[in-house]
Amino acid sequence: MTPRKDLLDIASLSNEEIEFVLANAAPFKDLFRRSVKKVPPLRGRTVLTLFYEPSTRTRSSFEVAASRLSADVTHFDVEFSSVVKGESILDTVETLEAMQLDYIVVRHKQAGIPNLIARNTAASVINAGDGWHAHPTQALLDAFTAREVLEDLRGRRALIVGDIQHSRVARSTSLIFRRLGMEVAYLAPGSLMPRQIPDEITTFGNWQDAFDWKPDIVYLLRVQSERLDEPFFPSATEYHNNFGLTDARLKVLNDRKLWLMHPGPVNRGVEITDAGMNYERSLINQQVENGIAVRMSVLYWLRPGAAPVA
Amino acid sequence: MTPRKDLLDIASLSNEEIEFVLANAAPFKDLFRRSVKKVPPLRGRTVLTLFYEPSTRTRSSFEVAASRLSADVTHFDVEFSSVVKGESILDTVETLEAMQLDYIVVRHKQAGIPNLIARNTAASVINAGDGWHAHPTQALLDAFTAREVLEDLRGRRALIVGDIQHSRVARSTSLIFRRLGMEVAYLAPGSLMPRQIPDEITTFGNWQDAFDWKPDIVYLLRVQSERLDEPFFPSATEYHNNFGLTDARLKVLNDRKLWLMHPGPVNRGVEITDAGMNYERSLINQQVENGIAVRMSVLYWLRPGAAPVA
Amino acid sequence: MTPRKDLLDIASLSNEEIEFVLANAAPFKDLFRRSVKKVPPLRGRTVLTLFYEPSTRTRSSFEVAASRLSADVTHFDVEFSSVVKGESILDTVETLEAMQLDYIVVRHKQAGIPNLIARNTAASVINAGDGWHAHPTQALLDAFTAREVLEDLRGRRALIVGDIQHSRVARSTSLIFRRLGMEVAYLAPGSLMPRQIPDEITTFGNWQDAFDWKPDIVYLLRVQSERLDEPFFPSATEYHNNFGLTDARLKVLNDRKLWLMHPGPVNRGVEITDAGMNYERSLINQQVENGIAVRMSVLYWLRPGAAPVA
Repeated sequence: MTPRKDLLDIASLSNEEIEFVLANAAPFKDLFRRSVKKVPPLRGRTVLTLFYEPSTRTRSSFEVAASRLSADVTHFDVEFSSVVKGESILDTVETLEAMQLDYIVVRHKQAGIPNLIARNTAASVINAGDGWHAHPTQALLDAFTAREVLEDLRGRRALIVGDIQHSRVARSTSLIFRRLGMEVAYLAPGSLMPRQIPDEITTFGNWQDAFDWKPDIVYLLRVQSERLDEPFFPSATEYHNNFGLTDARLKVLNDRKLWLMHPGPVNRGVEITDAGMNYERSLINQQVENGIAVRMSVLYWLRPGAAPVA
Repeated sequence: MTPRKDLLDIASLSNEEIEFVLANAAPFKDLFRRSVKKVPPLRGRTVLTLFYEPSTRTRSSFEVAASRLSADVTHFDVEFSSVVKGESILDTVETLEAMQLDYIVVRHKQAGIPNLIARNTAASVINAGDGWHAHPTQALLDAFTAREVLEDLRGRRALIVGDIQHSRVARSTSLIFRRLGMEVAYLAPGSLMPRQIPDEITTFGNWQDAFDWKPDIVYLLRVQSERLDEPFFPSATEYHNNFGLTDARLKVLNDRKLWLMHPGPVNRGVEITDAGMNYERSLINQQVENGIAVRMSVLYWLRPGAAPVA
Repeated sequence: MTPRKDLLDIASLSNEEIEFVLANAAPFKDLFRRSVKKVPPLRGRTVLTLFYEPSTRTRSSFEVAASRLSADVTHFDVEFSSVVKGESILDTVETLEAMQLDYIVVRHKQAGIPNLIARNTAASVINAGDGWHAHPTQALLDAFTAREVLEDLRGRRALIVGDIQHSRVARSTSLIFRRLGMEVAYLAPGSLMPRQIPDEITTFGNWQDAFDWKPDIVYLLRVQSERLDEPFFPSATEYHNNFGLTDARLKVLNDRKLWLMHPGPVNRGVEITDAGMNYERSLINQQVENGIAVRMSVLYWLRPGAAPVA
């Protein structure tokens, strides 16, 4: 396995690399059961978070992951920074490059920015979400979580529900699920279904057909509230009635012992009901915990100067 | 002494627990005279600050306390977080719970939120101020400070002055003072005096009567500037003239060698004059220093997995 | 060399002190070529950043420098803090003093504030820029950078270009350059040239005369965009045409092998063109890297309890 500098998307990973990251996440997760949850491999390394789009949850997850590997974490506060002063992203990256950072964790609302940054720095760049493009650590934690309950994913089925069109989670997670042998289907209103969909992905316009397909996992996407103002999006209530996990649909999940996933944070009453939040086979909190373990595994894997794995 | 998970208020503490926290704060304070002010007991533990109400001073105090115990500190930036996206507090707590944090330090403008959070997480929750309810680490540092100058507090008298009605400091500090054997009196305008006051607390409507009561400590509360717009509050000047520590009243403190306390930050010209800030027996800065030592003691006391104290 | 508590400006430093800081920066910079970029001398010390004016770059530089010396760093968030509540700077400093901090790194838009703070705290105060007055760590990093390419600075010439009048960088950097034996000239529009200039500094009103003076280094100052609204400042385009480093002027730098410096962040199209950003002898990124090394050296030099250097 050739050492790799950046994690930009799932598409560019080999199966071997995916398996390496998933395999190493397990011992990191075991660490969380101990009172000292910290190990030394990244001591003296600096992780900088560069979030052009706020996401307290994702940023905290990376920060805790880096701290548990003994790295130093610094936040580059873009809102106060030279972005306001009109500095371009590449000028910022040149500055960061000169600071001899080890990692830059970047989120940006525009697709491709992490790739642009990665080409212009020797630091390891980790894409923490770029526009509608990719969110690879989310995909890796989703795969890790799905395997915890289903073990071998081959031949299993995941139904991804919601605003597929604007979702980097849908893109990255459906890709890793398929790479690990799952079948994937999308359930979405026509206005939120992408025009181009890989042939091997099935699409549904209503829950009944989707349930008939017999998924093992139901993966609800977050409704972006910004979207609710736009013409192609129904009202929150209409969305809930047509595409949300109503209590009636939750009963189907329960009867069939289906697993429930969501990238968080949830909109109660839109994607999901209060009852859904307490569903016995919900993996939502497990996804959060696994997020830290998987991000530790990614940071460990990309560590500068790492010897190639034999 | 049974191990305890959370510090939510003073009322629920036993005398033994109060004494334990106060006793352990002293060696931590001694540490501040050394060049290396750090000890290892919380190495590898994660302290998360969750401040729904800004307070740089209190948050910094906890952060420095945690760092000096070798813990990792992370701030959950509520203003940018999913709170904006409509996520409820409990959903945030579920997320934090899944992150396997060791401590959550919470401030919220609504009373009872820390208790709600504590019931929903295995992490140790420390109340850093909730509405008008409680501010237990403030009370503990006040007690520690009062003891530094008065030693045994039994039979001593503390006069608490100002907006008693809306003050969690008044509530928590008057309680711990009485638990340690002090007599407490309130001095406040009628509009800012609570309707229900414990029988053993004396109340005054003017300084003359309060001075006649012969307090050992005069504890000024902070005037919340937000309050100045409200109808039941006099103007800043009127407040100062009637209830502030004017230079004439400061002279009384000086003549009688009374101690002066204030939780900070002060409003010069409202609660206190410039001369009052330089008063020889002011304990205001000592309170800040002791705040870090006491918070270290609280973090140490609650540490997960701590063996019960023999 | 007498131990010193604060770094407030270049003027108060002895030549011996300047040489000491510059000499120690080199081994710190060497550290950046290693995978573990961290050394232990400030373990257990606390560095607090107190920025009344935002500057992500400078604050991050100090934060990374402190972390690489194993110090704990805490940010005092002035925007949310008691400043809003009307607390004076000195009251804030009294509070910080009581926290037993080791270092306070301060930036303020008003000249003299770091000096005021330094007189009121036992902590080491480092001026990270105050109004038009001083920015001593910028000057030290500029001197370190200039020496990396020119070695002995004696008899060399630096041309500083731009808004001299309002620039603390111009003030501090021109001073250290002259202290190290360089000749300094200013190139600026009349409205941005200070009225009182030391006799030994030459002034120019156009590039042609400045080039005839045969500088070794061209140091462009940042145009503060706030300034563009003011009457004494030309438009961005007019500024660029008259005082910016146009491609034609860049050709002169290239032909004569002149070095280019800028404190960052740059305004592309104002002080500099895209071609200028890629200029072979640009030291701009080297300045950023050296900024961390020099700040490590300053922190190390001022460390509390340091034995006097023999």
